[in-house]
Amino acid sequence: MHIGLIGLGKMGANMRDRLRANGIGVTGYDRNLEISDVAGIGELIAALPAPRLVWVMVPAGAVTDAVIAELATVLSAGDLVIDGGNSRYTDDFSHSALLATTGVHYIDAGVSGGVWGLTNGFGLMVGGSADQVERAMPVFDGLRPEGPREESFVHAGAVGAGHYAKMVHNGIEYALMQSYAEGYELLEKRSDLITNVPGVFKAWQRGTVVRSWLLELLVRALAEDPELQNIDGFVEDSGEGRWTIEEAIDNAVPVPAISAAIFARFVSRQDDSPAMKAVAALRNQFGGHAVKTAD
Amino acid sequence: MHIGLIGLGKMGANMRDRLRANGIGVTGYDRNLEISDVAGIGELIAALPAPRLVWVMVPAGAVTDAVIAELATVLSAGDLVIDGGNSRYTDDFSHSALLATTGVHYIDAGVSGGVWGLTNGFGLMVGGSADQVERAMPVFDGLRPEGPREESFVHAGAVGAGHYAKMVHNGIEYALMQSYAEGYELLEKRSDLITNVPGVFKAWQRGTVVRSWLLELLVRALAEDPELQNIDGFVEDSGEGRWTIEEAIDNAVPVPAISAAIFARFVSRQDDSPAMKAVAALRNQFGGHAVKTAD
Amino acid sequence: MHIGLIGLGKMGANMRDRLRANGIGVTGYDRNLEISDVAGIGELIAALPAPRLVWVMVPAGAVTDAVIAELATVLSAGDLVIDGGNSRYTDDFSHSALLATTGVHYIDAGVSGGVWGLTNGFGLMVGGSADQVERAMPVFDGLRPEGPREESFVHAGAVGAGHYAKMVHNGIEYALMQSYAEGYELLEKRSDLITNVPGVFKAWQRGTVVRSWLLELLVRALAEDPELQNIDGFVEDSGEGRWTIEEAIDNAVPVPAISAAIFARFVSRQDDSPAMKAVAALRNQFGGHAVKTAD
Amino acid sequence: MHIGLIGLGKMGANMRDRLRANGIGVTGYDRNLEISDVAGIGELIAALPAPRLVWVMVPAGAVTDAVIAELATVLSAGDLVIDGGNSRYTDDFSHSALLATTGVHYIDAGVSGGVWGLTNGFGLMVGGSADQVERAMPVFDGLRPEGPREESFVHAGAVGAGHYAKMVHNGIEYALMQSYAEGYELLEKRSDLITNVPGVFKAWQRGTVVRSWLLELLVRALAEDPELQNIDGFVEDSGEGRWTIEEAIDNAVPVPAISAAIFARFVSRQDDSPAMKAVAALRNQFGGHAVKTAD
Repeated sequence: MHIGLIGLGKMGANMRDRLRANGIGVTGYDRNLEISDVAGIGELIAALPAPRLVWVMVPAGAVTDAVIAELATVLSAGDLVIDGGNSRYTDDFSHSALLATTGVHYIDAGVSGGVWGLTNGFGLMVGGSADQVERAMPVFDGLRPEGPREESFVHAGAVGAGHYAKMVHNGIEYALMQSYAEGYELLEKRSDLITNVPGVFKAWQRGTVVRSWLLELLVRALAEDPELQNIDGFVEDSGEGRWTIEEAIDNAVPVPAISAAIFARFVSRQDDSPAMKAVAALRNQFGGHAVKTAD
Repeated sequence: MHIGLIGLGKMGANMRDRLRANGIGVTGYDRNLEISDVAGIGELIAALPAPRLVWVMVPAGAVTDAVIAELATVLSAGDLVIDGGNSRYTDDFSHSALLATTGVHYIDAGVSGGVWGLTNGFGLMVGGSADQVERAMPVFDGLRPEGPREESFVHAGAVGAGHYAKMVHNGIEYALMQSYAEGYELLEKRSDLITNVPGVFKAWQRGTVVRSWLLELLVRALAEDPELQNIDGFVEDSGEGRWTIEEAIDNAVPVPAISAAIFARFVSRQDDSPAMKAVAALRNQFGGHAVKTAD
Repeated sequence: MHIGLIGLGKMGANMRDRLRANGIGVTGYDRNLEISDVAGIGELIAALPAPRLVWVMVPAGAVTDAVIAELATVLSAGDLVIDGGNSRYTDDFSHSALLATTGVHYIDAGVSGGVWGLTNGFGLMVGGSADQVERAMPVFDGLRPEGPREESFVHAGAVGAGHYAKMVHNGIEYALMQSYAEGYELLEKRSDLITNVPGVFKAWQRGTVVRSWLLELLVRALAEDPELQNIDGFVEDSGEGRWTIEEAIDNAVPVPAISAAIFARFVSRQDDSPAMKAVAALRNQFGGHAVKTAD
Repeated sequence: MHIGLIGLGKMGANMRDRLRANGIGVTGYDRNLEISDVAGIGELIAALPAPRLVWVMVPAGAVTDAVIAELATVLSAGDLVIDGGNSRYTDDFSHSALLATTGVHYIDAGVSGGVWGLTNGFGLMVGGSADQVERAMPVFDGLRPEGPREESFVHAGAVGAGHYAKMVHNGIEYALMQSYAEGYELLEKRSDLITNVPGVFKAWQRGTVVRSWLLELLVRALAEDPELQNIDGFVEDSGEGRWTIEEAIDNAVPVPAISAAIFARFVSRQDDSPAMKAVAALRNQFGGHAVKTAD
């Protein structure tokens, strides 16, 4: 099998490497021609056997929109596009509809695993028709970890289901990280009592209820920097966490833990909190409580 | 009527003034003899007609414990002690039991109103026996605002009920402040659209669902400093907010808004968040996401 | 002054009455012809002096869209449309743009006050150009409560600012209600100690930090039904609360109290919680904890 | 080595079995004599070689207090008591002090692993002096899973550190469970799109960021009951989750995710929510919104 791969960033490049290592031919294209296999999308298309399979792995939103739009003009009936980026699942509906006008098929694929995917393999959640999913299975098998297919791959439903599942995955991920982080702070605040905080996390790796891959990563981080002295508590968030909250709102699903995780990230990036300035101002007004003045 | 008042801090001094203005004789004692009417508790007791009524208005916890313990040794059967401080309601049980050993009566009184109480009057929630509450009514009437008694005073139940009600009052207060503060930040963040943020709060004072006294205070604060530039988003919290959470936990009452208010204050006082350092470290481990290094 | 008013539901009918009582002529139109002054929008337009002022007070979303679209075809350059419904502020941009194509002006007006507005007056937050706001001021003055204009009316900014401010108002409102509700449950759970729960709320109306109009409404509700026995804990939510969360997410504003209020409403409407089924299933798996079986 | 084990409930019985399988002699005592090896604590003590090691595995609180008090009267200087139950860490201070009066040593051990511990081994967090921890190491090694000791065992600090670490472990556990549960509900609510919800969880077991042991348990639960139809969303909580919140409050640590998990459990057990009754009552008062009447 020989596929095209558009987008050779951190994730795309790792996927190309893993696929090739697993016997899938990959022609990669990236706007950065230094890392690209071909000079342009036209050349990429020409290099692929028909019917073609093109995996798109570029930033969600405008960039993915543009790539899909261009593919709609250069691909032919029977070709298949897989969007493996972090697109919002609602974008899949317009992308698949656009491609369908010229008979091009579409699959959305949520991909998890981060920088570890190259060696460990990537977890995959896909949406699309059964026959197209079956057709792309060699690619999925080339990307996912060893072991039973159903433990790292799911055909979650029709178009959109893959990215929806990935969005939920990331929402859960945010809340899991927040969970361990709150526990870390509870231990760290009592370092008078807990004299070996990294050791506690390390010891949770076997036998306990809280063991997980994220825990292992925290153990690694604490091995490198036991008091996290070299790291700022400044945390970005990405589209998928935010979309999770919006979907929850749309579907009347209470998500207090996931939203707590997002809000904590928002706060982490503030120099000062307008809300807390307002609370301080209120306390000052009714109680004559001293305020710290900004100076 | 002539009562003793122990503790002449911000609240106690205002209460003395208001009571005197309303025809109640008050002999005040404070450790700071410059503001005290008498030189010691002994002199205070001697100055009062029997059976005595002594209002205690000192910091909750150890100081109140000590004052109650001393009163237990100097007061006589039939005297009445009212603890008007912010004591935890569970302390009322031991304080009343101690005083009861020598026949001294006890009322716990939650007092709200802050520095505005002198002119506006204080809201009162009291716990104790019906006859003792009736006996102290002239004092309560001297402290509370004008208007129907039941709109500023409640006999909430037996000993402990006054402080429990005051604790809940403060828990609600925390959440109300957080509510307006979140709204403030939502408006302030869109100052491109909302070109008159103070004006919005000002306009909510009549006719709207959100009108309240706290809103009026926020209007005052924004009149003095329309962008709250001279105030830090650093907010203390006091015992009653924390006790509210603990009571909620003990009684299996979900209090997500009140706890959100407390947690926001905790965060407001942190230079950096250990929890968010842990989240940043995790993101760095699995995603190769850049971290801001503390330097 | 003589204006048109489209939509004579609970709010619209009250506004018509209040405006007329305050000397503003109102021709009202409603699809329900039994309560309508005219038979159709054409007749409404014909009844108004040019340049016309038409206040729209219909359900947000599709209905408002349709009314605005129709007005765009029947109004003339120089006329003014005010959308006083609970539209999302982003709808104001398209509505004003559509009307502007034929020279029709636009103001968005957030209106607060509920069923009490008829007697108390309505709080108003408006967005639009200064000259159009000035032009409509007699209408605003006719709707708002007595007292200084700036305490019940604000020109919050350009088009969209009125509905944005109203959205934030409602977000705050949700959180305020949740705050009192959590306090209510804390008191109610300890009815062994707090033997007069309605009395506690009643006593908070004067002098305390938590006094507000919502508190007064809770006092009324508890006067009618002291244990709220005749009311289900089933609470709807409307668009504005949800939009507040979405705006918060878009602007990276942490809103833990407002979101807690929304999530509590979501939960209140569930017969059983899928999330809690999952937690129960997990506890059963790892701990052998008994589960309640659905039967 | 030959130790005594008091308490042969679900956990204690499994621990006895695992220790014996790993070459540690165990004499077990339980009030239920049908499962006990001896008739009483006296007989248990007599059966042990001096200096003795007695592991206590009974319900936290009053029962543990009573057992420790009895052991204080029957053990001798140089003996060692290990409390492996879910005691609050502050209890360890009084328990160790009491035993120390007669020269008996004390270790607190947090034990994780649930019903799976018998086969998988138990994760262990202990507090105490280095020499006593060293002395008991054969027991710890007999209980913990295979693999490097530091991945399933930690000497976390002095007395109290083991139970503190276990408390935090359980707080994290609550929040992790809530995280997956919110994700489950987000998927389940969109079963129109996600046609294979159990398959999604199953596929997350390899390669993804959210893989964990709890995830595996959820996969098992969904394999048994794909829509969790036979399980009620009614979830108990235990002391450790509550203590985590209280410690967080005492140490000014914000724990929004952990508290969200606890509050969700509280709500899950309510037939109707007093707080939501209050919100419904408020909406009815100001907006004339219809309420569902309890009947």
